[in-house]
Amino acid sequence: MSAEFDLIDRFFSRRSRRALLGVGDDCALWQAPAGMACAVSTDMLVEGRHFEAGVDAESLGHKALAVNLSDLAAIGADPAYALLALALPSIEESWLQSFAHGLFTLADQHGVELIGGDTTRGPLCLCITVIGHVPADRALRRDGARPGDDVWVSGTLGDAALALSGTGLSGEAARFCRDRLDRPQPRMALGQRLRELAHSAIDISDGLAADLAHVARASGVAIDIAAESLPKSAALASCADRPRALECQAAGGDDYELAFTASVSNREAIGALGRELSLPLTRIGTVREGHEVRILDLHGEALAFARAGFDHFES
Amino acid sequence: MSAEFDLIDRFFSRRSRRALLGVGDDCALWQAPAGMACAVSTDMLVEGRHFEAGVDAESLGHKALAVNLSDLAAIGADPAYALLALALPSIEESWLQSFAHGLFTLADQHGVELIGGDTTRGPLCLCITVIGHVPADRALRRDGARPGDDVWVSGTLGDAALALSGTGLSGEAARFCRDRLDRPQPRMALGQRLRELAHSAIDISDGLAADLAHVARASGVAIDIAAESLPKSAALASCADRPRALECQAAGGDDYELAFTASVSNREAIGALGRELSLPLTRIGTVREGHEVRILDLHGEALAFARAGFDHFES
Repeated sequence: MSAEFDLIDRFFSRRSRRALLGVGDDCALWQAPAGMACAVSTDMLVEGRHFEAGVDAESLGHKALAVNLSDLAAIGADPAYALLALALPSIEESWLQSFAHGLFTLADQHGVELIGGDTTRGPLCLCITVIGHVPADRALRRDGARPGDDVWVSGTLGDAALALSGTGLSGEAARFCRDRLDRPQPRMALGQRLRELAHSAIDISDGLAADLAHVARASGVAIDIAAESLPKSAALASCADRPRALECQAAGGDDYELAFTASVSNREAIGALGRELSLPLTRIGTVREGHEVRILDLHGEALAFARAGFDHFES
Repeated sequence: MSAEFDLIDRFFSRRSRRALLGVGDDCALWQAPAGMACAVSTDMLVEGRHFEAGVDAESLGHKALAVNLSDLAAIGADPAYALLALALPSIEESWLQSFAHGLFTLADQHGVELIGGDTTRGPLCLCITVIGHVPADRALRRDGARPGDDVWVSGTLGDAALALSGTGLSGEAARFCRDRLDRPQPRMALGQRLRELAHSAIDISDGLAADLAHVARASGVAIDIAAESLPKSAALASCADRPRALECQAAGGDDYELAFTASVSNREAIGALGRELSLPLTRIGTVREGHEVRILDLHGEALAFARAGFDHFES
């Protein structure tokens, strides 16, 4: 048996309970639940671009799956399966063990089965594909925002970007922000519940302003956000550089919170949902007719940021 | 709009006809046909490992999709969708245009819609995920081979490996073998029709002996192959180095033909299918009780090959 197959068997082969056929054949097979559409997303993470060389393997296993699950959350899908393609410069058992531990711990939390993949030698690169299920007419698409909708966001914004910003943070705040960057928590339960409450949703991977611009473009609407309303963690609130902190909230990436729009009539239900999930849900703006996204200060003036959002081809 | 999104829009965004939601949202959505299971496979191709630096972009686009579709063929699935994750060292429009042309030409031949993906800067690396549909109880799994089955293979063997072997070939034969290496044809129609005729199947990516070893292991059987019966192209037959040519047939990778096992009672039907598809289908051996794969010469002696099959971690 070759090293490749041995590797897959040892670290990534688990008997699947729900899939009809898991790791080890030409394809994996599964049956979608009756009445549900299938949802799929794929994300590639490259060393030196999406994560630093020498990053902790367990965190990387967590994050690689988390950013993919976040896409399922954003469309309101129930997570089900994942496939992992992995290029590695060499086989290091302890690294693989930690990576698999990080990945499977998160997968188990959300009932996700690893049903396939591919491993090869090459510059460190991960490509995860996730599959979930959602009633087709309840999917939280980017093109569903309507003028008059409230705009909401989950959790707090800007922590991950602040960890990368080089801004001096105290020990506790620095640790918190680093954890937000390295171990994002995909908002699966929120996404599933928003199927009944929201008109559109997106996960914040590239930065709030850039991601809301996708919603505005797809929906043919404008969005106004009140800068003062953006939810902030205690760590971010402790940052002395206020303009930098606000820029992280409005334009920093890697938050993996959900931004969504919903009818004004659902305000109370959304408030109750946040309390039920123990997850702050904050109303941050309004959808209106038009075609731009503005982040407004207390005087109603649009703010401009040097960094518009994360561009994977930026040098 | 950032360069990344612009890139996706320009080269890889096509309106999907069958999917509920294609490129451009957090996830793509589709509905599996009634009574069908979903099949999925993912493969990563790394420059310098799966293809040479400077390879023709159009061929690469073809091959990257072809090797994935071949996995769907091997399980007997109807191809439906693909997702493309692409790391590129830089954005070269002419390269992307040729790559997209190669990929979409093959996709169109098989009715495959590109419904999602990801692009990023990094060392050249492709990860394609393909999705198809197959009746769950008709899927051609690796674990279905039964003692007494015939072993069959489609097309000819060893041409791709011969192109890489450095063996001197004449102009015409060299071109033929190079084409077999660069532009494999996934055997979709054959895989679909074998749902009614075969007990097990696999596509030959790592080499006949290595791939049949997967079938033998999964099915708990032994397989005997008659070396003399292995189908050869005119190009391979013209190779003066007979031992090398045989090694390419038995242990070379990258053929992307289907090897399958079927009841003796289906010999006539399989012969007729080969004629209908204008694709040679050759009976090359027998499944028996046991647990090894042997390639036997005319005297019934097991042949040994220096190269057991393609190992993606081999140095």
